[in-house]
Amino acid sequence: MEAGRNFGETIDLNGDLGEGFGNWRAGDDAAMLAVVSSANIACGFHAGDPHIMRRTVEECLKRNVAVGAHPGLPDRLGFGRREMAVSPQETEDFVLYQTGALLAITAASGGRLAHVKPHGALYHMAARRPDIAAAVARAVYRLDPGLMLFAPPRSELERAGLDLGLRVVVEGFADRGYMSNGELAPRGTPGAEIDGEDEALRQALALAGRGTVRTVEGGEISLRAETICVHGDRPQSAKLAASLRRGLEAAGFRIASPASVGS
Amino acid sequence: MEAGRNFGETIDLNGDLGEGFGNWRAGDDAAMLAVVSSANIACGFHAGDPHIMRRTVEECLKRNVAVGAHPGLPDRLGFGRREMAVSPQETEDFVLYQTGALLAITAASGGRLAHVKPHGALYHMAARRPDIAAAVARAVYRLDPGLMLFAPPRSELERAGLDLGLRVVVEGFADRGYMSNGELAPRGTPGAEIDGEDEALRQALALAGRGTVRTVEGGEISLRAETICVHGDRPQSAKLAASLRRGLEAAGFRIASPASVGS
Amino acid sequence: MEAGRNFGETIDLNGDLGEGFGNWRAGDDAAMLAVVSSANIACGFHAGDPHIMRRTVEECLKRNVAVGAHPGLPDRLGFGRREMAVSPQETEDFVLYQTGALLAITAASGGRLAHVKPHGALYHMAARRPDIAAAVARAVYRLDPGLMLFAPPRSELERAGLDLGLRVVVEGFADRGYMSNGELAPRGTPGAEIDGEDEALRQALALAGRGTVRTVEGGEISLRAETICVHGDRPQSAKLAASLRRGLEAAGFRIASPASVGS
Amino acid sequence: MEAGRNFGETIDLNGDLGEGFGNWRAGDDAAMLAVVSSANIACGFHAGDPHIMRRTVEECLKRNVAVGAHPGLPDRLGFGRREMAVSPQETEDFVLYQTGALLAITAASGGRLAHVKPHGALYHMAARRPDIAAAVARAVYRLDPGLMLFAPPRSELERAGLDLGLRVVVEGFADRGYMSNGELAPRGTPGAEIDGEDEALRQALALAGRGTVRTVEGGEISLRAETICVHGDRPQSAKLAASLRRGLEAAGFRIASPASVGS
Repeated sequence: MEAGRNFGETIDLNGDLGEGFGNWRAGDDAAMLAVVSSANIACGFHAGDPHIMRRTVEECLKRNVAVGAHPGLPDRLGFGRREMAVSPQETEDFVLYQTGALLAITAASGGRLAHVKPHGALYHMAARRPDIAAAVARAVYRLDPGLMLFAPPRSELERAGLDLGLRVVVEGFADRGYMSNGELAPRGTPGAEIDGEDEALRQALALAGRGTVRTVEGGEISLRAETICVHGDRPQSAKLAASLRRGLEAAGFRIASPASVGS
Repeated sequence: MEAGRNFGETIDLNGDLGEGFGNWRAGDDAAMLAVVSSANIACGFHAGDPHIMRRTVEECLKRNVAVGAHPGLPDRLGFGRREMAVSPQETEDFVLYQTGALLAITAASGGRLAHVKPHGALYHMAARRPDIAAAVARAVYRLDPGLMLFAPPRSELERAGLDLGLRVVVEGFADRGYMSNGELAPRGTPGAEIDGEDEALRQALALAGRGTVRTVEGGEISLRAETICVHGDRPQSAKLAASLRRGLEAAGFRIASPASVGS
Repeated sequence: MEAGRNFGETIDLNGDLGEGFGNWRAGDDAAMLAVVSSANIACGFHAGDPHIMRRTVEECLKRNVAVGAHPGLPDRLGFGRREMAVSPQETEDFVLYQTGALLAITAASGGRLAHVKPHGALYHMAARRPDIAAAVARAVYRLDPGLMLFAPPRSELERAGLDLGLRVVVEGFADRGYMSNGELAPRGTPGAEIDGEDEALRQALALAGRGTVRTVEGGEISLRAETICVHGDRPQSAKLAASLRRGLEAAGFRIASPASVGS
Repeated sequence: MEAGRNFGETIDLNGDLGEGFGNWRAGDDAAMLAVVSSANIACGFHAGDPHIMRRTVEECLKRNVAVGAHPGLPDRLGFGRREMAVSPQETEDFVLYQTGALLAITAASGGRLAHVKPHGALYHMAARRPDIAAAVARAVYRLDPGLMLFAPPRSELERAGLDLGLRVVVEGFADRGYMSNGELAPRGTPGAEIDGEDEALRQALALAGRGTVRTVEGGEISLRAETICVHGDRPQSAKLAASLRRGLEAAGFRIASPASVGS
């Protein structure tokens, strides 16, 4: 496609790992470990448990995948996908506890926590609401001001992270359509989901390279992504993620965590 | 009583704090904060939640009470008091996760975690079973080899901690009767519970001072305690704890965490 | 006050019971059992556990207090007081499961479940949202069309219950101020909370007797209550509830569950 | 094999269904619904949630599969497979609550609960300990004396059920080796697991037909099974279960719940 044009440029691929609980598993973690450069590891509230967390951290360290925390709302039954009327103080405590646990497990395993990306409803609430965004950013900052915060570009979460001096890594999606205001088109609307491997790769290359994206309305806007989110919770999605990685590498990108690059 | 005789000697008083959950409270934490020099803070499995943990840590730091982790079995309904058939690996992960969360919250609050004391059934299992003891000690060591481990004297947990080079702080009880083998007399047997303030103080002074204790059989054995466990979960117990502290101070003891003394 | 004027008229007093969990307790259940004619028993999601539920049912049957279910959102940490983005189908299943469990425990104890009153955020959502109200009413109806549904007067929940042919029992508050639209004045606004025993009794008598209530704006509106909610979660509230019962009895009311009266 | 020899005789095939939680699934429920005549449905403690329970009940009623409760210990993280030090009273309450919830959901869906089979560690504890067995049987009896209790032959659970006059249905395993005392050979010992389809069918036919089984020691003992347990939690196990059903039908057996036969 555009092989070699981006030689030496770096893009991060992040994916959710360790989303099982007890006897249950979710997603093909083995496949994802071969694709992503950054892992968002569930921390026990919406998914994950102490055993899965430790094992996933160990696997990431072995495979040189950057370890990140993926804290969620305390709603295992709803997988952290339902908004709840939580206060900023409650939110800060949720992120402190979960990220703190993973940070300590990672250190105890000989590694170092690299980033934090809120999960599900918490991610969406933090993107939109300044008070929730500030609570998330504050928890991250208090744990370690050197942690990176993954956030949607132009979101309240990005702003809150920058306000505290955190290194914010803006995230893009290869398989979702964007609107002209830079937000994702809601699922179910025309163009909201991108199925084809070629089209997804094209969008990833645009986000990572030129810093632009086509919108579902037909235009093009400036939008840069430093990390691309990939999914592994369905068989075809893990395959798509692997294909995306190959395509980005063929185009000259180096797939690496921002942690390995510096700010 | 024996006022002044132990001038300058140090004894630690430890108590369980933050044992509520959500809307529920357990114990008079405010009263206990005025009595203990070391707090064992519940970490979310048998009791405690992110909010209570953070607030209790903040209170301890304000009052200069040493912050310790009190990890338990994942059995909130049974308050961590029921033995469960957990493996050593599961045990290690439970302690890693819970202690790790509290360690991170304490650091984020400007403090430093001082010690770990397993709770309830986990404490009893670790006292008796070498494999569970080793799992607990290993988790503590991996999190921070500078953490102190609270353990019954002559227990498997003491041994496991010493084997790893941890600073083990042996614990005694002022309000429980001892048997000639150094173990606590089971509740319900004659002399198992000590009600009187005077008798409790006498036992505390013996454990902390001469390093001896009278047994329920009528003899006396060598048994040194570096920390005395006090309770605050009933109105009279918090009162008893306060009286014990006054008595120890009157006898010349300085009440302080071993953290403030060095090994 | 108006002693004897309401001779033979019946009013129900309902209160929340069994709101502990595991080792924790909430409220003075013993005091409440002497006051209420209908108990709303927590069913395990926001509070309550199988042991507390069985014991509370047994106590109610012994004291001739009508047994009701108090199902809540699956949020023990938030005590069911935080709204969550749950679907009507999820809501229906939550009420089916929790009320079903209590219904079966009550039958196994030789009694019969009398009513259902949603708890906390679920109560408020069901009062306001037709879809959630219909889901709650449908679950109640499917379990037993003879169950009574406690609901705020003029609410979506009342409407949904009546639509299915359920016996709806409208609920009033003695200790909360009403607005002219019949809704409770939000806590924190002037007149929202009624502290005095006399004033609370006056409001209860008006709601139960004439079917009117003074509003915080200064007027009076028609509002009939068939059951008055009393609280027992603080020492003074249990005392207030007892005083309210004495006042209603002195005014000639018989305190009894609607179950004992028929529709 | 022995086609037609057992013409008209009936054998039940039971399997665990609804063992997911929230977003997680376990086992191929669709495949199992085509094989079993009795479903053991998880009730929310070790697995299952209100939504999965309701949907699984509906599927069973549609497919004419008998609905049974599969109550477990309150240990979702351990999938109810770890023994816990629970009291008989606690055990009775656990079974009351869980089975009560499923009983009510089944009735609300237009069906009728047929049987109860304890899950995992609870099954093993009830098989061995008279006090736990009596607690389980008492809970079942109190809910509905017409419920059947599934139990290992010659176990304490069988005895406790018979003592209360319950209809006890004894269970056999086609894919596990038996010892000469009638108990299952512990996993990991020679002959403990039976892999071949032919051998499993042979054992099922012996258990269901002649009421005998070969032992791992090489002898044969009397052991009758009225229900055979099949598994669906791995791809090959669902296939094996289907093959077992075909074999039993070819040998003349009618596959049906004991509920459809009477005692």
